[in-house]
Amino acid sequence: HGGKSEKSILSTSTATLEIATKQQLYMLDSNSPGSVFFLPHGTRIFNKLLKFMKLQQEKQGFTEVITPLIYKKQLWETSGHWAKYSEDMFKVEGNDKSKFDESEKDDIYGLKPMNCPGHCIVFKRFNRSYKELPIRFSDWSSLHRNESSGALTGLTRVRRFHQDDGHIFCTHEQVSEEISKTIKLIKICYKIFGLNNFKMMLSTRPDNFIGNLNDWNRAEKDLSNVLNKELGENNWSLREGDGAFYGPKIDILLTDNFGKEHQAATIQLDFQLPQRFELRYQNDKDDYDIPIMIHRAIFGSVERFMALLIDHFNGKWPFWLSPRQAIVIPINNNHKEFANKIVKKLSNEIEDFDNPTKLNTNKFFVEIDDRNETIGFKTKDAINKGFNYIILVGDKEIESGKLAIRSRSNRKIENLSVDEIINKFKLLEDNYE
Amino acid sequence: HGGKSEKSILSTSTATLEIATKQQLYMLDSNSPGSVFFLPHGTRIFNKLLKFMKLQQEKQGFTEVITPLIYKKQLWETSGHWAKYSEDMFKVEGNDKSKFDESEKDDIYGLKPMNCPGHCIVFKRFNRSYKELPIRFSDWSSLHRNESSGALTGLTRVRRFHQDDGHIFCTHEQVSEEISKTIKLIKICYKIFGLNNFKMMLSTRPDNFIGNLNDWNRAEKDLSNVLNKELGENNWSLREGDGAFYGPKIDILLTDNFGKEHQAATIQLDFQLPQRFELRYQNDKDDYDIPIMIHRAIFGSVERFMALLIDHFNGKWPFWLSPRQAIVIPINNNHKEFANKIVKKLSNEIEDFDNPTKLNTNKFFVEIDDRNETIGFKTKDAINKGFNYIILVGDKEIESGKLAIRSRSNRKIENLSVDEIINKFKLLEDNYE
Ligand SMILES: [Zn+2]
Ligand SMILES: [Zn+2]
Repeated sequence: HGGKSEKSILSTSTATLEIATKQQLYMLDSNSPGSVFFLPHGTRIFNKLLKFMKLQQEKQGFTEVITPLIYKKQLWETSGHWAKYSEDMFKVEGNDKSKFDESEKDDIYGLKPMNCPGHCIVFKRFNRSYKELPIRFSDWSSLHRNESSGALTGLTRVRRFHQDDGHIFCTHEQVSEEISKTIKLIKICYKIFGLNNFKMMLSTRPDNFIGNLNDWNRAEKDLSNVLNKELGENNWSLREGDGAFYGPKIDILLTDNFGKEHQAATIQLDFQLPQRFELRYQNDKDDYDIPIMIHRAIFGSVERFMALLIDHFNGKWPFWLSPRQAIVIPINNNHKEFANKIVKKLSNEIEDFDNPTKLNTNKFFVEIDDRNETIGFKTKDAINKGFNYIILVGDKEIESGKLAIRSRSNRKIENLSVDEIINKFKLLEDNYE
Repeated sequence: HGGKSEKSILSTSTATLEIATKQQLYMLDSNSPGSVFFLPHGTRIFNKLLKFMKLQQEKQGFTEVITPLIYKKQLWETSGHWAKYSEDMFKVEGNDKSKFDESEKDDIYGLKPMNCPGHCIVFKRFNRSYKELPIRFSDWSSLHRNESSGALTGLTRVRRFHQDDGHIFCTHEQVSEEISKTIKLIKICYKIFGLNNFKMMLSTRPDNFIGNLNDWNRAEKDLSNVLNKELGENNWSLREGDGAFYGPKIDILLTDNFGKEHQAATIQLDFQLPQRFELRYQNDKDDYDIPIMIHRAIFGSVERFMALLIDHFNGKWPFWLSPRQAIVIPINNNHKEFANKIVKKLSNEIEDFDNPTKLNTNKFFVEIDDRNETIGFKTKDAINKGFNYIILVGDKEIESGKLAIRSRSNRKIENLSVDEIINKFKLLEDNYE
């Protein structure tokens, strides 16, 4: 870490914090250092990111599971984390009151820093056949890492975080196809967010590798073929001997607006964990094989990815991701009631408390500004607050049923009916604009 | 607890477990006793329940927040939980490596059993005006309670659970309206699930009450007026002196198919926590008042509510909630490819890995049964597995573009195009059928 890098960290986190504070996205508190409180508007972004990624993962055949947060010490011994990672894991004390024997009473749990062991338990519970593979679990659990308090910064170095975590259990033959799809998803994702400055590295077998040399050679060949196919032959780099001892990996580095590089997505092959957990599946020869496990995340930490997006967009969220999609401004007090109806209609929150809101609804984040200020003042304020669209409601608009709508970035006014606005907004979301 | 009640518990949990095992909804494991692993199909139900409730909460003006899971001991002392609830809370050990002083090194945290203190922190962080009230936070955090291992059963007595938790911070004047809306939501919710056998009780001021007698009288009068209005004068009961020391409450008891009563929804007024956290808002007289806090949950524990639904529906999920909404059966091998396309179309998982799935999509849980078995066998198996609709694909169907579709419960076959099926399914979901 040279001087330049330190300075970049500073400017990045300062800029992030300023925007996040102004837009009330998240807060921190000394009662839980390193754990982020997402405020309502930050939660909207968080949930939209999840919705986006869940859709893409489902297409790739992932099924979501919800797994426990605390596991007994014995599990972390099986996984190997207790020996290597114990210092970085929060310990949880059991105190089981139904046990009379003092030695049994105090169970020690680890608060999970990763989802992999939980997914191994789920894989192992059922008889698995090669016909079912690949099995792909996704998980959005809270994860905790015991970072020292001095190292904590905003959204980027935290103690509690979430990953768009996924584990693929597959055969050797299936590795190429799975990695190929994962890289396609990374490309889709970065394109949507306009994150065009990224590079990928393949890290290969280190000296202290475990497992079978043939497996390593085959996997490394598969990975480099996939990288050639998906990125082009000279568009990725090799880090020879830099892989984990338990498998080769692909790292993806993103460069942010400040020139700082971030580790975001990862793809890690794992020959070890399936062995430690004695996972197996029935092959087509009435025998058993050990599956390969692939750890992969596209966002990586959702918190860190959000920090990156805050900087990247400089607080100017694209419509689909925006926690403030539109504001309705009544021209004077006579138009307040009508304006309020527009807000309710666009946010699909019609005031009928005796009947349920429908399950499949198009709803947008729309507010009203009915303060006694000038239109000019309110328009400027709306732009400053980051609303993507500004909708004016006056006599002309009420009479014609066509509202005056303009975007944050363009003064040009369109006259659209509410239904036309809903269609416009829906199209923007569908195209991730 | 008499003999009858004990027997009911047994039969309930046995029935639940049988269905859950057959449908692969969830599993338990000795590595984390009392923490449920939701399998892919159980996670689908869990997520659909969340989606449903989030929509209803948003209409009522709730904004979702994401709050930390671990809080330092000092917070639980402020909230009063450390003194009264300490035994039931999992302790988390900090071990902050950046602190040199041994006494500072070992932070003690509590793994949260409820969201209220976290929401008080968020309320307190900003200057609050009466104009903003009511402020309503919802939260879906994982909660942990240190139940003794002997007490654990399936989904009903667990150590880790989730609530459709919400806290309303409001003025005295706003209590009636908020409670009224909450009761309306409870009625909507139970109607949708067909849970018609419920009763509500108002529990009033106990001897050891805290706070101001006027506040109690006013609140109790408001609550009983609301109950009269929403349920009718003789359709609820009074439990005099049975309220918590910090506020009156409304309990809702559901009776299940086995005649067993369950505590599900709760509405609890709280005069204490806002005082302990020194919460305040600026009133219209340029002075400060203490808000009233209302704790409310409609499902209560999502896990417990799911157990109740498993029994209630006896595994026959209504379409909108079903993790297996339809199965496509090709009549012979020639129809496999077409059948697969139908599956992809209905589940909106068209195999295009180079482009994103759109954000607003109608997608259903649809599978294929392309085993070499007879149509009769596969139809029976599909019904047995709980698929709501069975779609047959043969020569006639491919030629006409009209698929043969029947429901689980009715042999009558309809001939519908894929788009007609999508509309049919969408309508079923929208009406919570
Ligand atoms: Zn992993
Ligand atoms: Zn509460």
